[in-house]
Amino acid sequence: MTTNNDHVVRADARATDQLRQVRITPGWLDSAEGSALIEFGATRVLCAASFTQGVPRWKKGSGQGWVTAEYAMLPRATNSRSDRESVKGRVGGRTHEISRLIGRSLRAIVDVRGLGENTIQLDCDVLQADGGTRTASITGAYVALAQAIEWARAKGIIAPGAQVLKDSVSAVSVGIVGGVPMLDLPYEEDVRADTDMNVVVTGSGQFVEVQGTAEHAPFDRAELNELLDLALIGTGELARIQGAALADPSPAPARTAR
Amino acid sequence: MTTNNDHVVRADARATDQLRQVRITPGWLDSAEGSALIEFGATRVLCAASFTQGVPRWKKGSGQGWVTAEYAMLPRATNSRSDRESVKGRVGGRTHEISRLIGRSLRAIVDVRGLGENTIQLDCDVLQADGGTRTASITGAYVALAQAIEWARAKGIIAPGAQVLKDSVSAVSVGIVGGVPMLDLPYEEDVRADTDMNVVVTGSGQFVEVQGTAEHAPFDRAELNELLDLALIGTGELARIQGAALADPSPAPARTAR
Amino acid sequence: MTTNNDHVVRADARATDQLRQVRITPGWLDSAEGSALIEFGATRVLCAASFTQGVPRWKKGSGQGWVTAEYAMLPRATNSRSDRESVKGRVGGRTHEISRLIGRSLRAIVDVRGLGENTIQLDCDVLQADGGTRTASITGAYVALAQAIEWARAKGIIAPGAQVLKDSVSAVSVGIVGGVPMLDLPYEEDVRADTDMNVVVTGSGQFVEVQGTAEHAPFDRAELNELLDLALIGTGELARIQGAALADPSPAPARTAR
Amino acid sequence: MTTNNDHVVRADARATDQLRQVRITPGWLDSAEGSALIEFGATRVLCAASFTQGVPRWKKGSGQGWVTAEYAMLPRATNSRSDRESVKGRVGGRTHEISRLIGRSLRAIVDVRGLGENTIQLDCDVLQADGGTRTASITGAYVALAQAIEWARAKGIIAPGAQVLKDSVSAVSVGIVGGVPMLDLPYEEDVRADTDMNVVVTGSGQFVEVQGTAEHAPFDRAELNELLDLALIGTGELARIQGAALADPSPAPARTAR
Amino acid sequence: MTTNNDHVVRADARATDQLRQVRITPGWLDSAEGSALIEFGATRVLCAASFTQGVPRWKKGSGQGWVTAEYAMLPRATNSRSDRESVKGRVGGRTHEISRLIGRSLRAIVDVRGLGENTIQLDCDVLQADGGTRTASITGAYVALAQAIEWARAKGIIAPGAQVLKDSVSAVSVGIVGGVPMLDLPYEEDVRADTDMNVVVTGSGQFVEVQGTAEHAPFDRAELNELLDLALIGTGELARIQGAALADPSPAPARTAR
Amino acid sequence: MTTNNDHVVRADARATDQLRQVRITPGWLDSAEGSALIEFGATRVLCAASFTQGVPRWKKGSGQGWVTAEYAMLPRATNSRSDRESVKGRVGGRTHEISRLIGRSLRAIVDVRGLGENTIQLDCDVLQADGGTRTASITGAYVALAQAIEWARAKGIIAPGAQVLKDSVSAVSVGIVGGVPMLDLPYEEDVRADTDMNVVVTGSGQFVEVQGTAEHAPFDRAELNELLDLALIGTGELARIQGAALADPSPAPARTAR
Repeated sequence: MTTNNDHVVRADARATDQLRQVRITPGWLDSAEGSALIEFGATRVLCAASFTQGVPRWKKGSGQGWVTAEYAMLPRATNSRSDRESVKGRVGGRTHEISRLIGRSLRAIVDVRGLGENTIQLDCDVLQADGGTRTASITGAYVALAQAIEWARAKGIIAPGAQVLKDSVSAVSVGIVGGVPMLDLPYEEDVRADTDMNVVVTGSGQFVEVQGTAEHAPFDRAELNELLDLALIGTGELARIQGAALADPSPAPARTAR
Repeated sequence: MTTNNDHVVRADARATDQLRQVRITPGWLDSAEGSALIEFGATRVLCAASFTQGVPRWKKGSGQGWVTAEYAMLPRATNSRSDRESVKGRVGGRTHEISRLIGRSLRAIVDVRGLGENTIQLDCDVLQADGGTRTASITGAYVALAQAIEWARAKGIIAPGAQVLKDSVSAVSVGIVGGVPMLDLPYEEDVRADTDMNVVVTGSGQFVEVQGTAEHAPFDRAELNELLDLALIGTGELARIQGAALADPSPAPARTAR
Repeated sequence: MTTNNDHVVRADARATDQLRQVRITPGWLDSAEGSALIEFGATRVLCAASFTQGVPRWKKGSGQGWVTAEYAMLPRATNSRSDRESVKGRVGGRTHEISRLIGRSLRAIVDVRGLGENTIQLDCDVLQADGGTRTASITGAYVALAQAIEWARAKGIIAPGAQVLKDSVSAVSVGIVGGVPMLDLPYEEDVRADTDMNVVVTGSGQFVEVQGTAEHAPFDRAELNELLDLALIGTGELARIQGAALADPSPAPARTAR
Repeated sequence: MTTNNDHVVRADARATDQLRQVRITPGWLDSAEGSALIEFGATRVLCAASFTQGVPRWKKGSGQGWVTAEYAMLPRATNSRSDRESVKGRVGGRTHEISRLIGRSLRAIVDVRGLGENTIQLDCDVLQADGGTRTASITGAYVALAQAIEWARAKGIIAPGAQVLKDSVSAVSVGIVGGVPMLDLPYEEDVRADTDMNVVVTGSGQFVEVQGTAEHAPFDRAELNELLDLALIGTGELARIQGAALADPSPAPARTAR
Repeated sequence: MTTNNDHVVRADARATDQLRQVRITPGWLDSAEGSALIEFGATRVLCAASFTQGVPRWKKGSGQGWVTAEYAMLPRATNSRSDRESVKGRVGGRTHEISRLIGRSLRAIVDVRGLGENTIQLDCDVLQADGGTRTASITGAYVALAQAIEWARAKGIIAPGAQVLKDSVSAVSVGIVGGVPMLDLPYEEDVRADTDMNVVVTGSGQFVEVQGTAEHAPFDRAELNELLDLALIGTGELARIQGAALADPSPAPARTAR
Repeated sequence: MTTNNDHVVRADARATDQLRQVRITPGWLDSAEGSALIEFGATRVLCAASFTQGVPRWKKGSGQGWVTAEYAMLPRATNSRSDRESVKGRVGGRTHEISRLIGRSLRAIVDVRGLGENTIQLDCDVLQADGGTRTASITGAYVALAQAIEWARAKGIIAPGAQVLKDSVSAVSVGIVGGVPMLDLPYEEDVRADTDMNVVVTGSGQFVEVQGTAEHAPFDRAELNELLDLALIGTGELARIQGAALADPSPAPARTAR
């Protein structure tokens, strides 16, 4: 690994520890209890939160709520078209894996007792994919989730004083590309990475998930530490953007100016 | 049926022969050969055209191309969440039926010999549904299709002089609500309609599909004629909007101002 | 379109406004509550009506009944064998679409309050296909449905005075073949048709469904009107044949003389 | 077991060693290479043979043909309606088991070298079920198979001198009902049987399959022998009826008198 | 058939009426209510019995229990790898057929009233296949079943005096190989057999199932009798081995010496 | 977290940095190219390697081989029975995720050019599950893989001098239970863990995968470091056991003494 990355030039001229342009449009859907269109550069994910009273059978009577997620990609989100999983008749392994990751990440910051016996279902549909779709999904799903909880609180479904969110959560990818650790990889960098890591972090900087994979070459302890440092820079910035989006949700006129 | 509809008040104050606000954003996707986000009021459909060289096995050696379509709805496009067809493991009857309708409608205005042995796959994904999703899909898919053909012509894949599009095509719904024939029904009117008709019409005013269904009460010849009159008003206006969108595709800055 | 069709010769020497030989054998099954084997020329469909007390969950407590239909084709109904949908593990789009059409057509003439909280399931299985299988299915299913309602009335499940059938219903195909509008197309004419239309009409001559498709060339208003005229001639004749079959169901000896 | 069954009275007054009325209508389908509607009392099965040139990949270059079968039941073949396997999305165990039995039974009497690299697919669809559907299927499928072979010989696809059929084959059920061994059980007897056996026998009296199952009570060697004696009486009679049907196939006018 | 088989030499030097080495390790699983690893030569099947209180809906209130079975094969149980049925998304015909056979065989010796409203599910998973997997499965499943019943009796779920097992049951294959009837065929003999028969017999020597199939040549009555004689020799020996295994289940140390 | 774990007592009296008893029986299957039964305490996984010449279509002509894996669990591997994925008709998300992890882990230490255009398919079937099934699978699959490569080298399918294995690989779970970091968690500890991490490490101590999940409470950087330290102790020991098993594969007599 180089010890001086100052002169590394990324395709979009970013610094190695810089996020792509991140934009969050909360309330993109008219009727969902919570929603956000999130963009990490050219990656665009529509996140919707559906709030329903009641919980799955195995949770009934527990006094606790449930949060779950499904991830999917439109067939032409990618450079070349992929077949629909509905047409193939089965959900692929990658899709399942990411859906489970999003669900676990959100449950890590939800107090299910505060939620009461209610269910929030997150849907993260990738409209355009340019790397980082799972991390954008987690980051956007948090915004939709927070909106849905506020909706339920306003309706009186959740008690006024109940604390449901213990913290916020966001996620970012990091990787070693050409020997250089980098933050927030677009597709073009992701395919060239030797090691790829997705890191899910709470607003207070604790780890929820660390998933590092040696795509081409195993990595050592020092590289792991450098990647974690970069990830924490990214999730710190994402937490700030989430907070701003929730503080000032784009009003109806702005949203429809799309 | 009343003979004087002048004083009928629709929820959104439209005249009975007036379309909802229709907006088409061509080129919404960066990498698709053609694409358009189309809105009929609150109904929003993302249409993508994928151009691939070659044709299905049963068309090989024919010198002819192929155009096909798939329609789907995001789970939270509707007021209450629907299960994903990929998770259910099968594509429902309604989805199949609409996919087939879109494909037939576009093939009606394509000269498959001019297209050569190439395939264009249209994907119409409903992001938000408020009635008329199949007619918005056809109307938007035409724009994506025209873009993809221009893309192929620019690449030299389609011969410069080859005529591929014989005409344009658009579609609109009409129905009898409370005894009054009306144009372009949102969900709230659609569920109350006695008769519901989807009409697909070429730019030159010829019929491609006429699908009238008595939801609650059979209809007579006179009512059928009134509905067809309204439909032609709507598709005439849609053809004009399609033409404008294709003549002046929103440039990149405008698109990302979304 | 020619204005004088007097000299058009069809493969089976029929006039352009003449049905194929239509035969209905009611009560073809021993144990079904209603059944009919219907033949439109070489097309043969076995229609069975199954009456069960109770309704699907979403209708419970409504005081209303439910009528639904499933259509399918035996693998060797056609000239070359088709794979079974049960073996493929999924029901195709065409099958779904026709099943839904049959169900809608029958519900249009049933008063679900008169039926009470009972369900009638129609099964239309094509034993041999030579064009017009969906229209034969609707026409035969009506006979099976009427038998099943009489069976339930005789059992006292439906109140003596309750009006369940508001009207009868039948269906026929029409199309423009070689520029000439024709009634009741066999397979050989169907594949050559420029426009194909299936029309479902009540016994009193009201439209239930009008499904016109431009297979090869869009059609104009005048052609649409000619096709509708032909369809009404056909459904009028079919209503008469249905009435005769129900008035004098073939007794057991006649049926087993098959 | 009683030693004197002379006075046993069956519901339909048959002797214990007597078949139900068996009727075979060969050529019931217009376009199949071979077909037969077979009736064992109220059980009616439509058997179709589809002849295609070529064999599955794993038989290519072997110089041998292939014979296979699929069995299915219409949803209202039985007293109460069953769900369609196409709708359930999977073929049940019983259906698979019977399909495999029919295929094995026919392959036992076919010389696949004589058939050459051609495939015959048998479809046995139960239109009405009253016990013995698998044995009726085998018996009728043989007739359809023999017709298809004659069709191919007439077309010159099978060499004039090639022996394809080594023998004929038929099948019948036997069982012990109320302690009495009986031949050809209808549904009402089948459900009461302690032991149920399906026996597939060649025209020359050799066994192809013997499938005996103790439904309620295990059986001993003597009972097994009595059942086999009855089965051979039944299959001898069935071989005679098959021969007659093939010798004098009902001509077109007779068939359409159905 | 030769009349003197004294000099036939089998690949493993067994006599024609001799079983392969049969070993049963009861209690192979720590947590199952009953289990056994059974080996017929190189064939190894892991049989597990799962006892659950309650019965399927259609048995509720009957006072009777239910016994059912599922059979499956690991992908590399055979010489060349087979695709997983879970990955193919459907259970094959052979698997279904054997699962049903195992279930029927066990139910034949269980008194479901003695079992009470409890369910025992047998799972027979073939770890290595060398012929006779279905007969080894039945023989091993009986041991697991008997253990599970003793477990339930010890727990007081089954009444102390209730008789649940009416008899024991085991199964063996027999076949005619090179004209010679033989007992317990390994794969190498099975593929060469003209006739293959699986026979399921109770401890007291009554037949539960007799499934004889002419793989290559139909068989006559005398051959059938010779095969049944051999089968009874085999199942007599298997009943003795089952009894020994249940009398002295291998204690924990012995089992883990595996 | 406690700073002194000396007095922590685990259910099986192990030290916090001690593996369960690990046993590897290489060559457990007679006909697989490579195989191993691996035990981590009560967890038992049968790993089979199937070597086939040729590669999937998308690798053809690359000169490179392919290594892939499938993981599954027998229905009664767990304390209570699970439904089979083959019967449910779909492979679950967890199964997919683990299959993908095993495949990636093995590919990380294989030089696919050395393998040539050959495929090795690993099957890891869990016979009994007591925590750590995915880490036992990876560790055992490496042994089966190494055997299959030696088999191919002995057959001359892989060139004598070709280096196929760049390193060995093993995996272990670590977690924080009751505030104490621990190595190799059985089921009972796994369900109580606040954080659970699976770590895949090469023989030379480089990371291949690091998958840490906060099950109940997010974790900080110090805890992450402690867990990684423990994991490296475990994988070092596993590498030694793998080496011993491959150096002295249990000979046939020993294996069959199972």
